[in-house]
Parts: sequence; C-alpha cells; structure tokens
Amino acid sequence: MNLKERKWCGWGWIQGPDLLKDKRSAFWNWLRDLSGFEELPHTSPIEITSIQMKSPELPSSLVSELESKITQGRITTEPIERIIHARGKSYPDTLALRSGELPNVPDIVIYPKSKEEVIEIVRWAFLHRVAIIPFGGGTSVVGGVNAIKDKEHIGIATIDLRDMNRIIGLDSKSRIACAESGIEGPLLEELLQKEGFTLGHYPQSFEFSTLGGWVSARGAGHQSIRYGKAEDWFAGAEIVSPPGLWKTEAFPASAGGPQIKDLIPGSEGTLGILTNIEFRIHPLPQEKYYTAYIFPSFEVGIEASRELMQTDIPLAMIRLSDSHETFFYTAMQMGGGDPSTIPQFCLMLIGLEGDAPSVTAGRQIVEGIFMKHQAISLGEGIADQWFKQRFLLPYLRDEMLDYGLGVDTLETATRWSQLLDLYEAIYKTIRESIEKDPDQKPKYPIVMAHLSHAYLDGASLYFTFVFPRSLNDPVHQWQRIKNSASDVIRYHGATISHHHGIGTDHKPWLTNEKGALAYELLIQIKSQIDPQNILNPGKLF
Amino acid sequence: MNLKERKWCGWGWIQGPDLLKDKRSAFWNWLRDLSGFEELPHTSPIEITSIQMKSPELPSSLVSELESKITQGRITTEPIERIIHARGKSYPDTLALRSGELPNVPDIVIYPKSKEEVIEIVRWAFLHRVAIIPFGGGTSVVGGVNAIKDKEHIGIATIDLRDMNRIIGLDSKSRIACAESGIEGPLLEELLQKEGFTLGHYPQSFEFSTLGGWVSARGAGHQSIRYGKAEDWFAGAEIVSPPGLWKTEAFPASAGGPQIKDLIPGSEGTLGILTNIEFRIHPLPQEKYYTAYIFPSFEVGIEASRELMQTDIPLAMIRLSDSHETFFYTAMQMGGGDPSTIPQFCLMLIGLEGDAPSVTAGRQIVEGIFMKHQAISLGEGIADQWFKQRFLLPYLRDEMLDYGLGVDTLETATRWSQLLDLYEAIYKTIRESIEKDPDQKPKYPIVMAHLSHAYLDGASLYFTFVFPRSLNDPVHQWQRIKNSASDVIRYHGATISHHHGIGTDHKPWLTNEKGALAYELLIQIKSQIDPQNILNPGKLF
Repeated sequence: MNLKERKWCGWGWIQGPDLLKDKRSAFWNWLRDLSGFEELPHTSPIEITSIQMKSPELPSSLVSELESKITQGRITTEPIERIIHARGKSYPDTLALRSGELPNVPDIVIYPKSKEEVIEIVRWAFLHRVAIIPFGGGTSVVGGVNAIKDKEHIGIATIDLRDMNRIIGLDSKSRIACAESGIEGPLLEELLQKEGFTLGHYPQSFEFSTLGGWVSARGAGHQSIRYGKAEDWFAGAEIVSPPGLWKTEAFPASAGGPQIKDLIPGSEGTLGILTNIEFRIHPLPQEKYYTAYIFPSFEVGIEASRELMQTDIPLAMIRLSDSHETFFYTAMQMGGGDPSTIPQFCLMLIGLEGDAPSVTAGRQIVEGIFMKHQAISLGEGIADQWFKQRFLLPYLRDEMLDYGLGVDTLETATRWSQLLDLYEAIYKTIRESIEKDPDQKPKYPIVMAHLSHAYLDGASLYFTFVFPRSLNDPVHQWQRIKNSASDVIRYHGATISHHHGIGTDHKPWLTNEKGALAYELLIQIKSQIDPQNILNPGKLF
Repeated sequence: MNLKERKWCGWGWIQGPDLLKDKRSAFWNWLRDLSGFEELPHTSPIEITSIQMKSPELPSSLVSELESKITQGRITTEPIERIIHARGKSYPDTLALRSGELPNVPDIVIYPKSKEEVIEIVRWAFLHRVAIIPFGGGTSVVGGVNAIKDKEHIGIATIDLRDMNRIIGLDSKSRIACAESGIEGPLLEELLQKEGFTLGHYPQSFEFSTLGGWVSARGAGHQSIRYGKAEDWFAGAEIVSPPGLWKTEAFPASAGGPQIKDLIPGSEGTLGILTNIEFRIHPLPQEKYYTAYIFPSFEVGIEASRELMQTDIPLAMIRLSDSHETFFYTAMQMGGGDPSTIPQFCLMLIGLEGDAPSVTAGRQIVEGIFMKHQAISLGEGIADQWFKQRFLLPYLRDEMLDYGLGVDTLETATRWSQLLDLYEAIYKTIRESIEKDPDQKPKYPIVMAHLSHAYLDGASLYFTFVFPRSLNDPVHQWQRIKNSASDVIRYHGATISHHHGIGTDHKPWLTNEKGALAYELLIQIKSQIDPQNILNPGKLF
C-alpha cells in the first residue's frame, strides 16, 4: 500500500480539499461561539513516531513459516503499517490514534495477492490460533477492523486485501460481474465503466472503501434506491474459512431452501474472508437528473419522499435534510448564522437516473407531488455542488478534532409510519446527552439529520452531531451520547444500523435487535464455521 | 375444513372446470395416438373408503392431554382427514393417494385457532417427541407436507393452519400488512383489496395455497416481476419453535449483521411454525395491460425477454412458451395436431401493471423491442383467455391420470447467458428418459417448457411432460425421468428449484447445490432450533 499520501490518523489524503475557503475564520469563530469555548483549543494529534507500541507477540518462527508459503515480501511488521491497521475511522478509533494510545495493534500485516494465498493464510492461522482481521479500506466507523484477539489467540494478523483488486469476470448478458474483494471504489468503477457498466455503489467512503467491505457491512451508496444496498446487488461469493474454500449459491432466484448466500452480507469478516464477489451491474444510465427543493418542514418532506418512493419513476436518490442540517450547511457557506431562529425549511436533493424518456416522465411526477406539498424548486446548482463535494465532508471532522471539538454520526432505519416519531426521539436524546456533559457546556449543540435511503416501506435517518470535546475523558463522553441514542433507537423498534454495520460499537444492542434465539443461532453459525473464533474476533459477537 | 367440495386425491374442487369442451374426444384420441396406446386405459383411483390405514400410533392419553390445552374439537382422527393430510399434490403423492398405498399417515390432524394454541401444540410435541407437520393448502408438489417421522418420534400430528386466517394489521403508509399464516389466497386478496391494496401473489395454486406455504417454499406468483417472489415481499414473521415463540427482524433495511429473517423463506416448516407473517403490499394498479405475441423461435423470445427485463418499464409478467408448448396449447384448442411438424413459433404472454402513464409508455417500449425481433402481435384476446384459465390446468392432470397417462412438471432458474443451453439439455434428457422406458413406448412424448419468471440477471424455466404411465411401477418410471432432469440441472449449475421448493423430492440434489459446508451449516441451524427434529422431519434435510 502506498501510504505516503494518506493520513495515518484521519480521513483520506494528506492534501485534503479546502471546504471552507474564504469563510474559514468566520466558520471556526462561529463554531467556537456555539460550543461555548472562549478560544477553540489546539488539540493536534500525537506524532506517529512517538507512539509506543508493544512488540509483536507472534513468534518469528511462525511468521517465517507463513512467509515460506506466500509470495515474498507480502508480510510486514513496519510500525506505520501496524498503526494504520490497528483501528478504523470511527470517532473513538480516531481519538485512540490521535492520542497514540493503542493497546492493541496487529503483530503483522499481510498483503495477499491471490485466493490461494488467502487459503494458506487461513490454514496457518487456524493451525496456530492466530486472530485474522480482513481489512479493505479500513473505513469502518463502528470498530469493524479493530485489532482484537481472544485470550487463546497467540497473535493478530491483519489481512489487507487491497492487492487483490482484479475484475475476473463480466457476463454482460446477465449483467453480473465478478471481482476480487479488495478492489477500491474508483478502480472498480473505472474498469466497469470502460465496458459501459456501473455498479452504482457510491457511499461517502467510495474513494477508499472496497467491494469486500461494502458486502461485509451491508453498505449503501448514495444512489441505493436505484442500485440497491450491498445485500441487494450482491450475487454470490467465494469465501475462505477454516474448513476451506467455499462458494455460495449464485442464482437469479431459487427455492432451494434458505439461501446461505444471505448470511454473507453483514457477516463483517466473522464467517470467512471473501475472495471473489459476484455482483449485479447496470449499463451506464442514459440520463441523470439531480436537483434541489426546499420543503416547508421535515414532516412534509418525509411525506413527499414516501409518495415518491411509492411511484414507478426511476428514482436514484432522495436526500432530505432536517431544518438543523439545512441551517448548518447554509451557515457553512455563509460563515455563520443565528441558531436560535432556525427556520423550519428543509433541503431535499433528489436524483433520477435511467433512460431519457423515463427520467423526463419522472421529473413531471416529482414536480406534481412536490407542488402539492408546497415545495420550492432551487434548481440544479445546489445538487451539482453536493455531487462534487459528496465525498469531502469527512475531512472536516479532522479539523474539528484539531480544535477541541467532537463529531460523530449515527444512522438507523424504520418504517414510514414510525419515521417522524423516531427522528424526534433521537434528536432529543442526542441533544440532551450533549447538554448534560459535566465538563463542557455548549451554547448551542449542533445536532442534525437527514433521510438518505428510502424504500417502499420505510427509510433511513442519518444524524450528525458536533459538541465541545471533553478533554479529560472524551471516550466516556462519546459513549454516553452513543448509548442514549442507541437505546432510543431500539426502544422504538428501529435497527441499530442501516448501513454502518455492527463492529464493536453496536454489539451491545444486537442481541436485543435479533432476539435471544436468533442471536444464539448466529453464534452457532459462527462456531460451526470458525470454532476457534479466529475470524475478526470481537466483531458482531 | 369443509372437505365435501374438494377432491381428496386430486386437484381442487370436485366440480372442476371443463377445459376441453367440444374438443374432448378429439383431444383424448390425439393423446392416445401420441402415447402409443391402442386404447387409453381406464385407471381410476381407489374408493377412499376402501383404503386400509394403520391405526393411530399416538397413545390416546397424549391426545387427551393436548385436547385439554386447546379449544375443544380442534383435533381429529377421522380417516378422511388423515388421508388428505398424508400427502401433498406431487405426481408421486397423487399416485400414492389414487392407489391407496399410504404407509404413512398422520395420527391426528390439529386445527389450531391461534398463536397461543400453536405454542401449546409445539410444547406438547417437543415434550413427547411427536413429529409435527405444518400444513397450509397442502399443494406442495415436492413432498413438502408428507407424513414422515423419525424412529424416535412416537407419532405424527399434522397441523392444518387454515383456521388461522385473519389479517391482523395493515400499515397503509408503510404498505406492510400482517396476517396469520393459514390464510388462503382468495380470502387474503379479498380483504386486502377491500382496503385498496394487493399482495399480487398469484401462483397457479392461488385458490388453495396459503400465505405461510408461499413463504415456506419461496413461492412465486405469475406477476413475480412486479410483486416479487415470496422472499422479496416477505417482511418478517413470528415463529413457534421448540425453544418458544420468536420474531424475526422486520426493517426496511438493516446493517445489523446477517438477517436471520432471510433463513425463513424456504425453511419449509423445518425451523418452526409461522404464525404471523408481515408482507409488503401495493395499491391496486391503476392499469393492467396483458397481451400476446408470437416469436420466430424460443431463442429470439429469450433475447427479447432479457432486453425487456433490463428496461425501466412496469413489467408484471413475461411468459414465453417454447415451440412444443405453443403447439400443445394450440392442439388442445383444436383437438389435435401433427407433432412431427411443429413450427418454431413461440407464444409470449406479457403483462404490464402500474400507473396509466407508465403502462402506456411501457407498451411503446415493448413494441419497439419486439418489432426488432420480428415478433407478431396476437392482441389481447389470447392473454385474456390465459388470464381466465390460469388456475385451471392442474385439473387436466387428474383426467390424464384416469386415462393411463403420467404427467409432471419441474422448474429451475439460471442466468440469461446459460438459459438456452440449459433449456436444450433438460428438454433432451426428459425426452430420452421417457423414450427409454422399458414398458411404455410413446409415439411422440410430450415435453414442453416456458420461461415464466424473469430477473435482471436470469430467468426460470418450467417444464411439463406427459407420458404413457408404466402401470407396473409408475413411481420408478417417474423417478428415472426426475433423476435425469435433476442431474442435468445441477450439472449446468442451475438451481434444483426456482419456486416449488425442496420437500422430499429434491433432497438428493440439495447438498450438491449448497456445497458441503453450507449444507452442514443449515443442519446446524436446524438442530439448534429443533434438536429433536420434530418440525416437518424428512423435508430439506
């Protein structure tokens, strides 16, 4: 992996974008005022070279044994490699990396080149009880790739799959492609688009996350309405587990009993290492139309979204910000604003993709429904701007962390009939949790949300919250907010995650979500495939 | 159950439809000639009253124990009840019923009225090791409801769920309804349509099969393109298993680990008894348009079907008959025809459902694609006629069985790129297997197929075959044909069933289809939930 251009403890490229431009100082002054700080503290991360790590625990004889079985030079113990593979990109991951407090790091990092090498690695790990952690983009925000092992394991090997990045089949008639799991978003789309196809999966992490990661965490791209969540476009896989290499069903449809294939999306590396993945592709759309509207309230916007989802038009995206998010993005452009008088207006971005006549007909239906709901068209400019900046917002988080702030996101999904109640309850609890902090008293906590993935029967809600960071115990501060929101989500019968996954951070709510019997079933499935729990231990289970 | 009007050993109502009308004698003479019989034999079923059954094995004290726990009069040992619940509607089931050779019948048949009664029944069965077989319409054509028990079981209780037939919730905003699993198609649609909704699930068995059966066997209705297979519209369930009552996830979408919900469709009663089922519903379509075309060949028809599936129009159904089926249905109307000169023409029925502008726009796209493929429009009359008769064809099977013929169907699915090869291979093997029969030499075996459920990535194939029945050993004769076709399906990597399920009849091919590890996983899941194997033993596993 070429690490030089990537941040070791934050999001993306070292040479990141400048989102704030000439509004930079106004924006930070505004955040300072909202946060209740007199001055924004300077809280830079530690220098990577000063991080003290424990020495690798894996005996070097075992490492040599593995070295003899795979291509030379594919195993590394470089400190920087061990550090960047120790954690993902969650808020607590970032706090840990920035502080250099990393009690657990992988002993070695392996970059296999082929399925055959993955088989050798898993066999070796099983024989010696080494915890193995499959690692794609490392962009998990729920602790999905954290270096964790059981007591019985003699060490941790992280398997970085990004050198397994080939497309190995494309059935253009059946619109199914097959690729190695470590391929990153940009390369995958480049290769597919050369053939006139797209997977259409563009999550915010697109530039860095991998095909395998998307499937493992049941990810969702911005255009999930048209292209599906990972579990929808996932068509089958080859998997390496301790018992060996296996292949799931891969039929257009089947009545051949429960489909074991369906257990793979969301398995987060705990059932095996995905080597090849088959997935549904689409010809590049003839036409794309993205535009923006303002709705009189979040409730009205939700109602319009539901009506739209229940039509036949070729919708690709609905992204409805609540009034707080609408206000925040305006303030970001303007360099500030008065939060005590936030108007009820809500911004909606909407996208259609498909053949030209369907998109044209769809636009008319959108306009009809939106007119009924008194929405005002803002035109295509704002949507264009969002489209250009859609992968950039995570960069702002690192800057906030540099200035004594905390920021996190969380998301869920529920049915249309429950959506507004759930939204209000989560908003309230996050805001109250932030305000109840013993150390930090913000003047105005930033809590905002959008609806971003919609279905016939319901939709997802995505919350972002910014708060003055407790400098004594930021992890505990975060955990308190996270717990309160997660409890409310489960109390309302909604899912603990719509597309981020479970990892370590959502585990406490998973038993309740599944129910005791179903959770026990999952554990049985896991132990049947991985009796020594070497596959990504500590995640999901 | 009111049994008086239903056939005990065949399909449907005793007063069945007359499909042949004035072509009756011509049709049977034609079949006689094709079959190579000099005279069609008269092979009526046995009288039900002369069937010798073994006495119930379940001790009467146990039956009394259960009687004390549920509503009085819900348990029966009537011979007719035990007979009609002994088997489903497969060809070997029908042969067994007609001959009266029923080595296994349920000891008792129970008609629970509520979820609470199902809980009592399952608890009782678990305590005493009684095999329990959930029974909906009893329309399985793969042995899915056959009375089978393990050696350790002390008896068999079939649980007929058809008195659990209420709709218990309808969330019109989220377009989700919830009903008891024993509700039959006509009542379900009647109740939904009163509220302006439809499930849109119309399998050939629609008049008799139940919501629970559809989910259990991953069924597909004729309009599956629009409304989905059972696993698509299935949104969640309550299930009674030996460990107790449990509820699956029921989210619009989730990243909360693998969804245990996905194990329910296709579980065929082996993981528990479904009591309540949540499912996605749709408003009644504003417009329906069904019409017929003739294609120059099956290959061209397949190509046109694929192109159509890969557009954005509101397709509900594509049903493309091969040249043999096209010929057979014409012959049925005409009272005969010369099979040695079957033209290559293939009939396609196509249906669109949706809002009026989408249907209108869709028609134009259909016409454009079909014109390119030199299809000829036959207009709406033939489609209307099919629509009216679509549940009636199974009645013809009973008449064929009365006249010394055998008839069965089988189905599979594969990707578009494999479809024609698979079709040709299955056609060839069925035909050769029929011709190789040592007893019966047909002049012209009837083997025909249609494509009837289509997806972006592939489609299903449905074969029907009619042959002179071996009167010595009809089961062995059938098994030989079935084996040859099933082996070819698996050899080509296609699924052993697209919508009929596994039951007993497809079990020999399931391990190969799943692969050893995945099949072992399924067994683990089963034994975790049902360690005594009391839930529908002998099916799937």
